[in-house]
Amino acid sequence: MENIVKPSILPGFMELLPAEQAEFNNIIDTIKAVYESYGFISIDTPVIEKAEVLFAKGGGETEKQIYKIENDKTPQALRFDLTVPLARYVAQHYSDLDFPFRRYQISKVYRGERNQKGRFREFYQSDIDIIGNGSLSIANDAELVKIISEIFERLNFSDFVIRINNRKVLNGLFDFYNIEDKTLVLRVIDKIEKVGREAVCKELSELGIQVQTIESIIDFITFKGEVDAVISYLKGLDIKNETYSLGVYELEQVCKHIGYYKVNTKNFRIDLSIARGLDYYTGTVYETFLNDYPEIGSVCSGGRYDNLAEYYTKQQLPGVGISIGLTRLFYQLEQLGLTRGAKACSVEYMILPMEESCMEFALKVAERFRCKGKKVQVYFEGGKFKRMLNYANKLNAPYAVIIGSEEAENQQITQQITVKDFVTGEQKKLSIDEL
Amino acid sequence: MENIVKPSILPGFMELLPAEQAEFNNIIDTIKAVYESYGFISIDTPVIEKAEVLFAKGGGETEKQIYKIENDKTPQALRFDLTVPLARYVAQHYSDLDFPFRRYQISKVYRGERNQKGRFREFYQSDIDIIGNGSLSIANDAELVKIISEIFERLNFSDFVIRINNRKVLNGLFDFYNIEDKTLVLRVIDKIEKVGREAVCKELSELGIQVQTIESIIDFITFKGEVDAVISYLKGLDIKNETYSLGVYELEQVCKHIGYYKVNTKNFRIDLSIARGLDYYTGTVYETFLNDYPEIGSVCSGGRYDNLAEYYTKQQLPGVGISIGLTRLFYQLEQLGLTRGAKACSVEYMILPMEESCMEFALKVAERFRCKGKKVQVYFEGGKFKRMLNYANKLNAPYAVIIGSEEAENQQITQQITVKDFVTGEQKKLSIDEL
Repeated sequence: MENIVKPSILPGFMELLPAEQAEFNNIIDTIKAVYESYGFISIDTPVIEKAEVLFAKGGGETEKQIYKIENDKTPQALRFDLTVPLARYVAQHYSDLDFPFRRYQISKVYRGERNQKGRFREFYQSDIDIIGNGSLSIANDAELVKIISEIFERLNFSDFVIRINNRKVLNGLFDFYNIEDKTLVLRVIDKIEKVGREAVCKELSELGIQVQTIESIIDFITFKGEVDAVISYLKGLDIKNETYSLGVYELEQVCKHIGYYKVNTKNFRIDLSIARGLDYYTGTVYETFLNDYPEIGSVCSGGRYDNLAEYYTKQQLPGVGISIGLTRLFYQLEQLGLTRGAKACSVEYMILPMEESCMEFALKVAERFRCKGKKVQVYFEGGKFKRMLNYANKLNAPYAVIIGSEEAENQQITQQITVKDFVTGEQKKLSIDEL
Repeated sequence: MENIVKPSILPGFMELLPAEQAEFNNIIDTIKAVYESYGFISIDTPVIEKAEVLFAKGGGETEKQIYKIENDKTPQALRFDLTVPLARYVAQHYSDLDFPFRRYQISKVYRGERNQKGRFREFYQSDIDIIGNGSLSIANDAELVKIISEIFERLNFSDFVIRINNRKVLNGLFDFYNIEDKTLVLRVIDKIEKVGREAVCKELSELGIQVQTIESIIDFITFKGEVDAVISYLKGLDIKNETYSLGVYELEQVCKHIGYYKVNTKNFRIDLSIARGLDYYTGTVYETFLNDYPEIGSVCSGGRYDNLAEYYTKQQLPGVGISIGLTRLFYQLEQLGLTRGAKACSVEYMILPMEESCMEFALKVAERFRCKGKKVQVYFEGGKFKRMLNYANKLNAPYAVIIGSEEAENQQITQQITVKDFVTGEQKKLSIDEL
């Protein structure tokens, strides 16, 4: 070969080495198991969609970041999230689905983000949504808190907080104060944790809101307390507004249901500043933070929306959902040195035939282990014993099973075989069933 | 909403309804479990790669079918297979990998195929490859036959045949007959099963090959028999050519090793006409056919190559691998009505709280089932009992667990609960642990 192309991938793409990949896969498997235990159904939509479908809602930041396919006929592009494809899926297959429709999808999405550390152009989203036909019980909103909590517990983060709020509470409040552009204000107050009270005050006054109103709003969104205390506070305020009252009622109902699940109270709370900048949420909103790593930001967010698929169907399809940005989460965990511990092994038993004549029996031994559900590799390459052991060790195999000519001649699968235990360093004779 | 966009996907893309998706996922899970039991490691490469990497080998049909990303800087495109990304991965991460490197990847690839039934533009490939550093034992070639056989058995196809051959045998034969453009001849004879002896004769004579040589070649590639008979036939021929002899030796070795695995002899045979049109194979080649559905063509193909990553590194990396085109296989099985049977259920126990006051206890019951590893959904929407049962039935839940006010007041998790068994149609009282 004369011309060698340098092997490399595009910037903003994550590619893992086998050991890291195994850890990443473990995270996905854990999340999937939790989703499935709650009866969520897997769907798998195309990575490429028609542009008219992706942009039915129209423009915004997302459209600028899109990966477009070169094509002279139908304009098409890569999905930038899993919610738009879900909306299209539910509208398209409406008559074939049973509602409430509980789906999960763990797949890659694409955004042409600015190239910087920790920002990815191809990344996994792990989404669940529950879609109702015409209506959907608020009990679903509570279940999602339980599910998030279970996922982070199983991933061994005990110190996390799911913060919930309700958009109607904020919208009602803004109505009450005669604020017109609610979305703009929501986006500003959503940042209070990051930028602080001062900065939010300044931005709000630049929007032409009176100082006293700003103070009231900020006092409101920064009110802290146990769930019951916050609910009492909200009920006690003299805010006469239907949306507000409905929001407080919904928030109370969600919290009551969360109580049924016995979610650890340290793992969730009401945070009246949570708004979720995206404008399609209409009720409950969620954000999840790891207390020890606030710099990561929210690791699981979502909310309730009144009408999932309004751009594709006249059916009223309310829903509630959450999303975990897995690639970014994994990257951050790695940066923090939190992924090293759980070294996954792809091979549990490395079978080492000492010579070609031992091969048949070595394969028999391997087969026996596989029947017991084990991951087994036979080392076919021969060569020096030390090199074989070294290979097994590098692959993190806990055991090497050594098949010499004596064992091979004996041929009995029940005989004792020499086993090297890489954890203890010991080498001993055992039967397969003893292992 | 005034303007509704018709919800639809692009032609040539497969999207499944939940029940079909569950079956498809079952197939993937089965294949994955087999791969992992043989110590294969999962890797996950980006869907988008640099064009210079994808086309390092240069042009051909594939380049015309490529999905290019609109981009003014780095030319980039979607992968069209998983082998090129593997070659790039192994070259790029060479010093971090342990050889033999056994990887699997089950992912989507993209080809702008002509739009016709059963041809997909986005489809899953399920690949395994074993890559050696400098050399790789022929025993690996045999193991792949065992793996293919195990996969199709577990997928409940007992009537399949893995046909193997060795490219060196054919190349040696062609050398012996002084045929210059071997690749061209390989492509012609590869089609003999489809187009018949006559058509192949004609095409070969158009290539300027003498009638007698053509007859000899066709007699050769159509020789049928048990493994031992074919090997004897190959050894008995008076073909003096080193490549040929090496090929026969390799084929014999592979068959000897396959024998060690006790692969059912009805599931594999030597087929001297198998050539695999792609020109990078250099030794063993595989094709797999379902006897009852020959029209599907090969469902699992692959082979041995001398140098995986020659376009990206100077390291000599021989390998052997196979690929299953899952999307097409699934489509064909569906067309043949072979996917209906195994209706997967996403919910094993549908819990039906009869009124809001039963909710807390219903959630407790659900939790108990989940602790036992079950898939459980609580029906939150209330309404008529018949509608609830209907929903449970439509989702294929085998059991509905009915929580009335009596049970809810009792609160004991050990009490007997009314259970509707959808299989027998019976309704009876049982404790959770009895279920």
